[in-house]
Formats: sequence, C-alpha cells, structure tokens
Amino acid sequence: MKAVMENIGVVLHEPRYPENIGAAARCCKNMGIQDLAVVHPHDMDREKMLKMATHEAAELIEGMPVYDSLEEAVSSFGYAVGTTARTGRHRRPSDTPRDMAGYIAALSQKNRVALVFGSEKWGLTNDDLRLCQSVVTIPTAGFSSINLAQSVMILCYEIFTAHAPELGFTPRLASIRELEGMYGHLKEAFLKIGLIDSQNPDHWMMNARRLFGRFELRAKEVKLIRGFCRQVLWALQAMRKT
Amino acid sequence: MKAVMENIGVVLHEPRYPENIGAAARCCKNMGIQDLAVVHPHDMDREKMLKMATHEAAELIEGMPVYDSLEEAVSSFGYAVGTTARTGRHRRPSDTPRDMAGYIAALSQKNRVALVFGSEKWGLTNDDLRLCQSVVTIPTAGFSSINLAQSVMILCYEIFTAHAPELGFTPRLASIRELEGMYGHLKEAFLKIGLIDSQNPDHWMMNARRLFGRFELRAKEVKLIRGFCRQVLWALQAMRKT
Repeated sequence: MKAVMENIGVVLHEPRYPENIGAAARCCKNMGIQDLAVVHPHDMDREKMLKMATHEAAELIEGMPVYDSLEEAVSSFGYAVGTTARTGRHRRPSDTPRDMAGYIAALSQKNRVALVFGSEKWGLTNDDLRLCQSVVTIPTAGFSSINLAQSVMILCYEIFTAHAPELGFTPRLASIRELEGMYGHLKEAFLKIGLIDSQNPDHWMMNARRLFGRFELRAKEVKLIRGFCRQVLWALQAMRKT
Repeated sequence: MKAVMENIGVVLHEPRYPENIGAAARCCKNMGIQDLAVVHPHDMDREKMLKMATHEAAELIEGMPVYDSLEEAVSSFGYAVGTTARTGRHRRPSDTPRDMAGYIAALSQKNRVALVFGSEKWGLTNDDLRLCQSVVTIPTAGFSSINLAQSVMILCYEIFTAHAPELGFTPRLASIRELEGMYGHLKEAFLKIGLIDSQNPDHWMMNARRLFGRFELRAKEVKLIRGFCRQVLWALQAMRKT
C-alpha cells in the first residue's frame, strides 16, 4: 500500500531563506506533494523562491498559504510529524524517517498528514513539537545540521517510497484543531478542580499531552473526553450554587 | 553491517552551479563522506560554494580535487554508481537507491565506491554511464528533475542508513583504471582479429562492457583477461611473420 501523496502537506515554520522555500517546493513536486505552507516567513522574496522552485513547482509557491501561527497551519490536519536534529534528555524520543514513513503511508489513506520543519536557525521548539503527534530525527554522522530543503526531501522521499502494510481499518483521526480544543477544555477543568498549580501551570497539561499524544485519538473519542470535561465543569458550577 | 563511509566518494561531473557543489559538500559531511571531487566544473566561485557548504564542510571544498575527465576521477575506485533521471529503451536498466545502498554498504567494506552525478542540465550521457558498473534512478512522482545536491543527499543518506547482510567474503574488485586498461586491451584484440567493423566500431565494445559490467570483476580476473588478449595479439603477430 503506497502513501496517498495528496494527503501529505509540508509546513515550514519561520523559514529564514526564500531559496529554501523554493527548493522545498521543488522537492514536494518531485515527490507528488501539492500542499506547501509557511508560518511567519522571514523573507518572502518571490523571485528567489521561484528561481529555486523551477517552473514546474511555481504553482506551489503561487498558491502557498502564509499562516500566523503553527497551530493554525496544522489545525486542519489529522496528524502532524515534527522534525528535529536535537535529541537529548529534555527532548521527546524520536523515530527514524523510515519507521515513520510506513506508518504515515498507512495513515495517509484516510487522513491528512503534516510534515513540520523548523527554522534554519533554531529548528522547532519544545512548544512547537507539542503540536505534533510524533517526532522524527534524520540520522547523521556527527554533523547533524541538515539544510532545511534537504530535510524536506528526505522525509518526502521516504514517504513516497514507503510501502505500508495493509491495514484492515483506517479510522478518521481527530484533527489538530479538535485536539487543541480538547486540551483547552481539559485545562479549564484542571484549573477548576485545582489540579493546576499556579506555580507550575504546565505540569499537568504536559502529562495530558504525553498521555493522549500516544493514542492517535479519533474524532469520536475527542468528543467523549470533552463531554467528560463539560460534565465536570457543570458539576462544579452546580455545587457552588447549592 | 553498516557501510564504511570513508570508502565512499562523491564525483560531480560538469556541475554548473557552485552553490550545488557547496550544498553537496554539506550533504557529504552530514552523512560521513570525506571525499568529494569535481570534473570540469563550469564555475569555481569558492565564496558561493563555501556559503552553501557551511563552516563544517569547508574542508571538503578546500581539499576538493578537480579532474579533466570522468575516467580520471573514478580511476582509483573499485566500483562506480551512476545516477540518471532518464530511463527508457535506450538507457541501461537502473536500480532504486535502496536496492543499490545495501549492496554498496557490503562492497564498501573492502572497496572504494564512487557515486557519480551528471550536470544540472544534461545529467550523465551514455558514454559517462559506461564507466559505471551500475545505474540508479531516484523514484519520483512525474516531475523527475531533482536538484543536484538533493540527489547527492538521497544517495548518501540511503548508503548511510543501509544495513547490508553480512558477507562471508568481500573480494577486492578491479579498479576502474584496471577495467579501462582491460577494455583498451580488448579493443585492440577485437580490431586485430577483425571483429570490430569500421562502420560500427562500438558495437562489440558495448557488448563486452555489458557482459563484464555485470560481473564486478576482481583484479585477478582482469589480469587473466588481459593475459588472454596479450596471447591473441602475440599469436597474430607470430602468424604474420611466418
């Protein structure tokens, strides 16, 4: 089972060089990806982009959405994969592109999947990665800083050439918009029941994101969890009134 | 068994843009390759190269040999892999990078292997590919023209991440210099015995290259074949004298 490349999108977060945006567009076109978006680009020099994109990929640059936040850029996707060169104690464990690709190929049968790349200078922060359900690190020999467009190519190429095992059932995952709505709802509930401490407000949210991040929640399950939150908030409100 | 990256070299044949040479150097450095060479570069603007190479890969640019011919550039290697986007009836059948990578990883245990890339404009000609024992085509979705440095990255990455099956025995292959010496010798013999027709001089040489190209000849075998040629030539000379 090959990936449905029409369901794959590339998101460049705060790219610095328009040449890299253009080169990424060419990679997308090489591998059958039609969906390229940027968040807060540093420089939108179209001429520099188009030179690297070549004529064939110009349409991706012409139609490219520009977002104000990464959350907005990935909100319509069902799954987001972040990329990072930095690994270590304080980073989430990451997969290889090859292991990721087979799984993405399967998911892409029914879901839109975003590949998210950070800026040339900083990569993705832990906060950015929190929006992603999984994280990929491209293996390197010592010098781990890979050019942005090269990273885009490796991931797109891996997905394009992947053969996923046939799955009996590929559910519609909750979109990232639905997930973020759920986390907002959970935070409200955590605050109201006193679970969230004003000194360390993120601790429980991190735990919740780690827990649910592993599950690839479906749209129905997100509704279930939000229903529970609503009930908790309602009960607290009702108690206060009595 | 991982590839011995110290035994892998990248050869750029007639590259047009110094930026691509620099970007290729960075790819090499990312994947642990220390050996980058160019043949007949169109433009050797070091500043443009170094900008793309980044500080880490500058040493590859500084020490980069510049050759006058592809044959010279690959002569010290035991095996050369050519790359082409053009496939078709008149082209040699090509492997995928993945299939090639496992084999190269095994060969690299005892042999130096060259990855050969053509110019941005024309790629490698059939004549160039004749110097290569195998040919690779990167799979694409329709738009097959991949940026030069991107192609370098995909091949280097595939070899770096490949796991070759353990081989009980990895022989020293004949170097390309030895092979070309053998073909020269064969051509002389073919001419003298009247096998080579002045109207179609390349026909038999093509057949010989196709035949021996499949075998990955060892140094000892090349000596054997050249011994046979020598004997043929000697016998003809002796006959003429009597």
